[in-house]
Amino acid sequence: MSAFDDLLAFQRQTEALSSVAERLGWDQETVMPRGATEQRSEEMAAMESVLHERRTDPRIGEWLDQAEPEDTEDQRVLDLIARDFRRASRIPARLAMELARQTSLSQGLWAEARANDAPQDFLPVLNDILMLKREEASALADGGDLYDALLDDYEPGATQAEIAALFDAMRPRLVALREDVLGADHQPQALSGDFPQETQLWLARTCATAYGYDWTRGRMDIAVHPFSSGRWQDSRITTRVVETDPFNCIYSTIHEVGHSSYELGIDPDYAFTPLGRGVSMGAHESQSRIYENQIGRGRAFTGWLYQRMSDAFDGLSVPDAEAFYGTVNRVTPGFIRTEADEVQYNLHIMLRFDLERDLIAGRLDVEDLVEAWDARFLKDFGVAVDRPANGVLQDVHWAVGLFGYFPTYALGNVYAGCLNQALRSAVPGLDRFLAAGDAAPAVEWLRENMQRHGGLYPPRELIERAIGGEISEAPLLDYLEDKFTGIYRL
Amino acid sequence: MSAFDDLLAFQRQTEALSSVAERLGWDQETVMPRGATEQRSEEMAAMESVLHERRTDPRIGEWLDQAEPEDTEDQRVLDLIARDFRRASRIPARLAMELARQTSLSQGLWAEARANDAPQDFLPVLNDILMLKREEASALADGGDLYDALLDDYEPGATQAEIAALFDAMRPRLVALREDVLGADHQPQALSGDFPQETQLWLARTCATAYGYDWTRGRMDIAVHPFSSGRWQDSRITTRVVETDPFNCIYSTIHEVGHSSYELGIDPDYAFTPLGRGVSMGAHESQSRIYENQIGRGRAFTGWLYQRMSDAFDGLSVPDAEAFYGTVNRVTPGFIRTEADEVQYNLHIMLRFDLERDLIAGRLDVEDLVEAWDARFLKDFGVAVDRPANGVLQDVHWAVGLFGYFPTYALGNVYAGCLNQALRSAVPGLDRFLAAGDAAPAVEWLRENMQRHGGLYPPRELIERAIGGEISEAPLLDYLEDKFTGIYRL
Repeated sequence: MSAFDDLLAFQRQTEALSSVAERLGWDQETVMPRGATEQRSEEMAAMESVLHERRTDPRIGEWLDQAEPEDTEDQRVLDLIARDFRRASRIPARLAMELARQTSLSQGLWAEARANDAPQDFLPVLNDILMLKREEASALADGGDLYDALLDDYEPGATQAEIAALFDAMRPRLVALREDVLGADHQPQALSGDFPQETQLWLARTCATAYGYDWTRGRMDIAVHPFSSGRWQDSRITTRVVETDPFNCIYSTIHEVGHSSYELGIDPDYAFTPLGRGVSMGAHESQSRIYENQIGRGRAFTGWLYQRMSDAFDGLSVPDAEAFYGTVNRVTPGFIRTEADEVQYNLHIMLRFDLERDLIAGRLDVEDLVEAWDARFLKDFGVAVDRPANGVLQDVHWAVGLFGYFPTYALGNVYAGCLNQALRSAVPGLDRFLAAGDAAPAVEWLRENMQRHGGLYPPRELIERAIGGEISEAPLLDYLEDKFTGIYRL
Repeated sequence: MSAFDDLLAFQRQTEALSSVAERLGWDQETVMPRGATEQRSEEMAAMESVLHERRTDPRIGEWLDQAEPEDTEDQRVLDLIARDFRRASRIPARLAMELARQTSLSQGLWAEARANDAPQDFLPVLNDILMLKREEASALADGGDLYDALLDDYEPGATQAEIAALFDAMRPRLVALREDVLGADHQPQALSGDFPQETQLWLARTCATAYGYDWTRGRMDIAVHPFSSGRWQDSRITTRVVETDPFNCIYSTIHEVGHSSYELGIDPDYAFTPLGRGVSMGAHESQSRIYENQIGRGRAFTGWLYQRMSDAFDGLSVPDAEAFYGTVNRVTPGFIRTEADEVQYNLHIMLRFDLERDLIAGRLDVEDLVEAWDARFLKDFGVAVDRPANGVLQDVHWAVGLFGYFPTYALGNVYAGCLNQALRSAVPGLDRFLAAGDAAPAVEWLRENMQRHGGLYPPRELIERAIGGEISEAPLLDYLEDKFTGIYRL
C-alpha cells in the first residue's frame, strides 16, 4: 500500500465514524426517548473524542508528506485532508474540549433565556463563548483575519471583505423593493383555515416525490427545527407541522429535500472520501433555496400545488391559482429570520453579519449587543424590536459558537439566483414540467452541473463552472424585482 | 488518578461507543432506508474496528495489574473487565475479522437458502463458520472444553455437563406432559378473526404500560424479528403485527418489555460500567419469559386482557375469559421454535443443544446435519419435518456464529420458574393486581431482587440470591404440569 492508499483507508474509516455521529444526532432530534439526554451526551462525547483523535493523528501528517497524487482529483483529496488536518491540529485539545463543553451547555441556557425573554441570563454565557471563539480564530488565523478564519470553516476561501462588498451591492435594491412591496396598494391575501397534520404530511411527501427525493435512500420525520442529515445512501429529512400554516410544512420539506438531494446526488464513487459531501454551507444553501424558492414558489409549481392543496383540504380560502401564487409569496413585516420571505431574508442576514464581525473584532461588547441589535433592526426594518426573543435571542447560532455561519445563507441565495438563471436558459420549457408537478428536469440539471461533483471543486469554482460565468448578485436581484413587481402590481 | 480510575474512565468511553454501535443496529432494523445497507455495513465495521482496538488495548492489562479495588464491587468490576480483555486478547485479529466477515455474509445466504428451501446452498457456508468457531473455541478454551468456552460468552460460568444434566432431568416430564396435552379430549379453541394493525399496536402499548415500561426511556417500533436494544436511559422495544394473530404482537411486546425492563431496572450508578448490563443471556431470558409466560399468560392477566381485547376488537370469537385463558395457552404440534408454546419450547432447545455440541466436538459433520436434525425431530416430536425451512434452516443463530447460545433460552425458562415460585410466595395477592391489568407488584419484586443488580453477581448467584435457594428445574415443571393439567382438564 502506498502512503496515499494508507491515508485514504484511514480517512474512509474516519468518514464512516463521522457519519455514525451524525446519525446519532438525527436520532436525538427525531426518535430518541426524552429521558435519554444525559446518556446521549456521553455517547456523543465519546464519538467526538474518537474523531478528534483521528483528525489530529500525526500519521496523517506523515502520509500527506509522502503521498503522491496521480491526478488532479487525488490532489484535491489531499488538499481537503490537509486543510482539515491543519485546522484540527491548530486548535489546542484543551480549547476544543472547552468549546464543546461550553456550547453544549449554552444551548439549553439560550433556549431558557429565549423562553423567558431574559437576555441578561444568557449574555454572560455568550461572552464566554465569544472569548473562546476568538481564541479559536486566533489559533486558526495564524496572523490573518480572525473572522475570515471562522468563515473559512463554512465557506472555504470566502472573505469578509468580498462578502461585505457583495452585501453592499445588494442592500439598496433589496431595501427599495421591500418598501415598494410593503407600500403597494395590492396585497395578496393570506391563507386561512385549519389544516390537519396527516394531510400536511401527505402533501409534504407528495412535494418531496415531485422533486425526485429518493425514498429508498431517505425518509421523513418530524423535528422541532427541520434539518437534513446524512449522505451517500442515507440522507434523511425532517419537517414540522403548524396546523394553521401548511406552507411551513411544505416549504420546510422542499428546503430540506434540496439539502438532502445535494448529498444524495454526489458521485457514489466519492462516498467515504472528502469529496463525498457538499463543498460548503453556501453551496448547500443554494440547493435548498433554489428548490424552495426559484422552483417551489414559482408560478408554475404553485399552480400545481394549488390544485393538490385544494383537493387535499377540500377547498381553500384563496379563489384561484393566480391569487394563490401571491399568497405563497406574501411579504409582511416581521422580526424573525426563519419566517422571512425572499425579499427580506437577506436583510436579516446582513444585520447579523455586521454584528458578528464587530463582536469577533472586539469593536462591539456582548453587553452592548441588545442595544446594537435593536438599533440596527429599527434602521433596516423601520420597526422597533418588541422583545428580545424576537430580537437578539431568536437564533441558536451564536449560542453554539457558529460565528461566521450566517453569511453563507445569503451566499446560498446569491448562488441560487445565478443557478436559476443558468437553469432557465438551459431548460427553456421547465415551467411546463413544473406546472405538472414534475421538477425532474430542474433537479437533473442541478445534479449534472453541480451536485454530483461533491467536494471536487472549491465553492466559487463549482458555481462558476455550473453557470458558465462569474458569480454576481444581479441575477438574484433581477429575479426578485421581476417576481415581486408582478405579484404586487408595482 | 489511580490505575483503577484510569481503567474505569477508559472503560466508560468503550461502553458509550458500544452503546452507539447497538443503537446503529436498532436503526438498521427499524427506520433505516432500505438502500443504505452497504453504507451501514461500512459504518458498523468502522465502529467494530474502534471497539476491537479498545478491547484489546494493552493498557488495560497494565491498569488491571496495578488497580487496587476498595471493595467487592470494585473487585467484580475488575473481574468483568479482565474477563473481556482475556477473551478479546485470545482471539487473533485475523480470526476476529474473518469471523465478522463470514457471519455478516452468511446471514444473507442463510435467509436466501431458507426462502428457497435449499440447505445445500447454505451448508458449505455453515461449515466454514463452524470451522472458524471451533478455531475461536480452541483459542478461548486454552486447553479446556471447546463448547464450554463458547457457552461462557453467553452464560458465564455455565458448563455443558451441568446443562445436559438439567435437560436430562426435564425431558421425561416435558415429554409426558406434551403427550397428555396433545391427546386430551378437551382442546381449547383457537382465536379467529381479523385484527387491524393499529388496534394491535394500541393493545401492545397498553400491555407494555401495564408492566410499567418506562416510555420516557424507551419506545416501540415495528421490526421483522422483534428485539430490544439499549440500556440505561434508552432501551427500546420492537414488535411485529400478524393481522390474523394478535397474540403474536401482544406477547412479543411483553417479552421484549421483559428484556428492556431488566436493562432499565439496573442501578443507574452502574451506567457505563461493566455492571451496567444484564449479566447473562439466561438471566435476560428469565425476565422476558416470566413477563411473557408466568405473568402474561396466567389466568389473572389474561382475564384482564380478554376484556381489553373484546372492547378493542368489538367482540372476540372466544366466549369468555376462562375459554380465552385456554386459547392463549393452546398447545399444537409445530416445527418452529419461535412459535412454540410453554410445554414444547424447551424440547426444541434440547434438540439444538445436542446437535451443536456434536458439531463443535466434531462428532457430527455439517453434511450430515439435515439428516441428524430430521431424525431427532421425529424422535422428540413424533412428526417428520416437512421441509428444511421448517427444520434445520429455521433459526439464524448458527448462520451468524451463535453456537452455545441456544441453551440459554431454556436456562431462562428454568430461572423464570424459580423466580415465579419466589415471587408468588413473596407477593401472595399478586393475582388481584394482575386481574386489574397491573403488573407493578411483580415488576417491583423482580427489579428489587434481581434487575437492579445488573452485572454485580454471576448469573447463578444472582438467581439464587433472588430466590433464596438453589436453582432447580422443579418449579418450572411443577408450574407447567399444574397449569396445563388445569387447562386441558387432565
